[in-house]
Amino acid sequence: MKSAQVHKKEVVIIGAGLCGSLLALRLAQRGYKVDVYESRPDLRKVDISAGRSINLALSDRGFKALEMAGVATKAREICIPMYGRLVHDKQGNTFASNYSGRSGEYINSISRGDLNAILLDEAEAAPNVNLHFNVKCTRVDIEAKRAYFSSYENDDSFEVEGAVIFGADGAGSVLRKSYYLEKKFLFSYSQEYLTHGYKELEIPADALGNHQISKDHLHIWPRGAYMLIALPNMDGSFTVTLFLGHEEGAYHFKGLDSEAAITAFFKEEFPDALALIPNILEEFENNPTGALGTVKCAPWYYKGNTLLIGDAAHAIVPFYGQGMNASFEDVLVLDEVLDTCEGDWELVFKTYQKRRKKDADAIGDLAVENYYEMRDHVANPLFKEKRRLEMLLEKEYPEAYFSKYSMVTFNEDIGYHEAMIKGRAQDKALLNMIADGTVATNLPDEDLDLAAIFKKVQEETQEVMDEDKIAGLK
Amino acid sequence: MKSAQVHKKEVVIIGAGLCGSLLALRLAQRGYKVDVYESRPDLRKVDISAGRSINLALSDRGFKALEMAGVATKAREICIPMYGRLVHDKQGNTFASNYSGRSGEYINSISRGDLNAILLDEAEAAPNVNLHFNVKCTRVDIEAKRAYFSSYENDDSFEVEGAVIFGADGAGSVLRKSYYLEKKFLFSYSQEYLTHGYKELEIPADALGNHQISKDHLHIWPRGAYMLIALPNMDGSFTVTLFLGHEEGAYHFKGLDSEAAITAFFKEEFPDALALIPNILEEFENNPTGALGTVKCAPWYYKGNTLLIGDAAHAIVPFYGQGMNASFEDVLVLDEVLDTCEGDWELVFKTYQKRRKKDADAIGDLAVENYYEMRDHVANPLFKEKRRLEMLLEKEYPEAYFSKYSMVTFNEDIGYHEAMIKGRAQDKALLNMIADGTVATNLPDEDLDLAAIFKKVQEETQEVMDEDKIAGLK
Repeated sequence: MKSAQVHKKEVVIIGAGLCGSLLALRLAQRGYKVDVYESRPDLRKVDISAGRSINLALSDRGFKALEMAGVATKAREICIPMYGRLVHDKQGNTFASNYSGRSGEYINSISRGDLNAILLDEAEAAPNVNLHFNVKCTRVDIEAKRAYFSSYENDDSFEVEGAVIFGADGAGSVLRKSYYLEKKFLFSYSQEYLTHGYKELEIPADALGNHQISKDHLHIWPRGAYMLIALPNMDGSFTVTLFLGHEEGAYHFKGLDSEAAITAFFKEEFPDALALIPNILEEFENNPTGALGTVKCAPWYYKGNTLLIGDAAHAIVPFYGQGMNASFEDVLVLDEVLDTCEGDWELVFKTYQKRRKKDADAIGDLAVENYYEMRDHVANPLFKEKRRLEMLLEKEYPEAYFSKYSMVTFNEDIGYHEAMIKGRAQDKALLNMIADGTVATNLPDEDLDLAAIFKKVQEETQEVMDEDKIAGLK
Repeated sequence: MKSAQVHKKEVVIIGAGLCGSLLALRLAQRGYKVDVYESRPDLRKVDISAGRSINLALSDRGFKALEMAGVATKAREICIPMYGRLVHDKQGNTFASNYSGRSGEYINSISRGDLNAILLDEAEAAPNVNLHFNVKCTRVDIEAKRAYFSSYENDDSFEVEGAVIFGADGAGSVLRKSYYLEKKFLFSYSQEYLTHGYKELEIPADALGNHQISKDHLHIWPRGAYMLIALPNMDGSFTVTLFLGHEEGAYHFKGLDSEAAITAFFKEEFPDALALIPNILEEFENNPTGALGTVKCAPWYYKGNTLLIGDAAHAIVPFYGQGMNASFEDVLVLDEVLDTCEGDWELVFKTYQKRRKKDADAIGDLAVENYYEMRDHVANPLFKEKRRLEMLLEKEYPEAYFSKYSMVTFNEDIGYHEAMIKGRAQDKALLNMIADGTVATNLPDEDLDLAAIFKKVQEETQEVMDEDKIAGLK
């Protein structure tokens, strides 16, 4: 065994994904000398999308962080706005449902790889950033602030000592694993898997390079126990994701083990989508079945030595379209904390966690909640009626009414936790008002007394929150 | 390295603690040949109480399981009934508060070691049980159903292959760790620590061997951020437990690092208790500071090969006095499942988990909830008034009214999950009724209209549950 080299660095970031590269860029802008270590090859040079979502939803929280780092404009150039859901039923009928009753509120489909490339280009252009690819972190000595790497290029191993080390190394974080295994402190940790997994498929562009279905929507084929969604890509294609039980339900991944089974399943449940996915059998075989898990942990930091950030600190399921946005917002919040106490990393990390943890927990819970909502409530008449009322309320009271979805997705100045508490109470109030006829809702849009409904929703929402508070519930 | 011996066994149980020994006894009664492996020495021969609670609260769920195995009578002989809490304020005043408005409902202080010894004696008396002490399980190959042990007595290592292996090896379960590390399946896992830890102290018997304070109560010195409790022992002593922040709050374990600091803290907060704990400084130094954590995981089983049971599957914090009871109830439920599908271990484990998991999760949550309730709500006038009303309602309607505490502690025929859902709704209803004056409660006991209150609580509780249901909440 060769004795390893030790490199001394200032800021060490493990991971050059979306979070790591934005963090590198921002810390460089603040004047730090930054070294970033990434286990994968440089995605600007090779195609390494396999097994990861090809496109993602970018919304206001993400943009706010990108604006901070001066890269929002470049990101917007590769965005495809999605104004609402387009729901496909079994007969091939479609129903549009906007994300907001306000105009100008939409989410964006964006290529993970292209956005990452923009961030890497910007970071690399800074004189004080060094990017290292194909180097795998194997463990971190959190006391010595030393990260151990092995290179995929020449089999070498080396060590890096940082003044501070950030773990932006995603859901499978090696820094987080070091916290768990080193047992230097009481580390609260959870990994929770859903019984569903996912698989990516593709609807290619037509012969002219155009989108075959509306590119202005996030497409969704909800079927209770399973669901298909599709987001548009710039090249005219759609990335389709199938969500299905690993081994539970009438159909499940384990059972889809033959051409006949796969085809029968799609013919039965998603005939219109099947007609648009020519390579379904090949893709089913070649694309991995992914797991859907939520990771939470605390503390995120060890002294002023190390910090977990992004998915490494709080991996979430994709059902709120907030994973990337939450990670970008992490960098924004860290930056704001640096404005107040730069110079003392332990204080920075402690302040950051105190401010950020409840919001990270909340978006993790909201994302799981939306999984059940999309799966079980989509056909529920109460939920449908609530959705209709909320669109009307948002349109009528654009400055005053915000659905839970709007608060989470479009109101970047409200934290996720506040959005969750207020949004849940509002949903509960509305659903119960509809159920017990407190407001007359069985009327066409134009006959509804929106002013009365608005007032009543506000009162009932406040009462739900007050009653929870009196009962000592969070 | 010597080649290890492999012993072939029928039922292998890792852990001869409370759960493992009751499980061994019951499976032996069902006719299985059982081998139990315990890392500690035989507690009937040496004193190994250090670092573990010396006494525990035994209540109806635990008794039901002990009755199943025919050992309830022996257990009752070493029980000390505690009819309620005796709250001590800073001035040394005490206030009694019963656990139930019904007579005959109380919890019991029992020596962990003595109860374990009863179970080991019974198990050992069965011809088909073999107990092995001082053998530490190091890992389990869950596919091969093979457990690896090293002996503390002769440094030997050996392997045991079971037709089935049970992990009754407590909060730090090696079987559970094998699930986590082997990554053979998606293992949802969480360990959550409270910011508080605990330390055990002792109030010795007086010169005549009598209890110095009432032995008919669980004593509690609630002080918001910290708390002292004491449970009686048969020898006239009390085991006292201090709950205190590790490093948070005005006082914390980290700061109690000198005689002066410890004495000052107790003089300020617990002067009457301090007068009864002569060896406080020595005990503070010698007794470890324990961590308080909740462990949840799923699945508990791997095929029909292995099963986690008791604390190994669901370690909980001690604030509901249900840890041992929940573990004993596990054995009872498993036994009931065996009645229905014995012969197919995988079906047994699957059925058992399906039936038991939600209850295990619920008692874990209830125990954490009670930590906050004991810490933060004890001085809250609403909570005090609720307590008074519930005692009166239980007394007036012994067959019909049950507080959350009663459902959890004394109603062994209701699962923990049902007790939690109903109990939370009832608490919320009652607290809000008191807060908003829906019922007149500012009256002496004899002037209250209990019939009206009872009716109203029932209606409001149902409404809380209905509203949650409509909102899609669990």
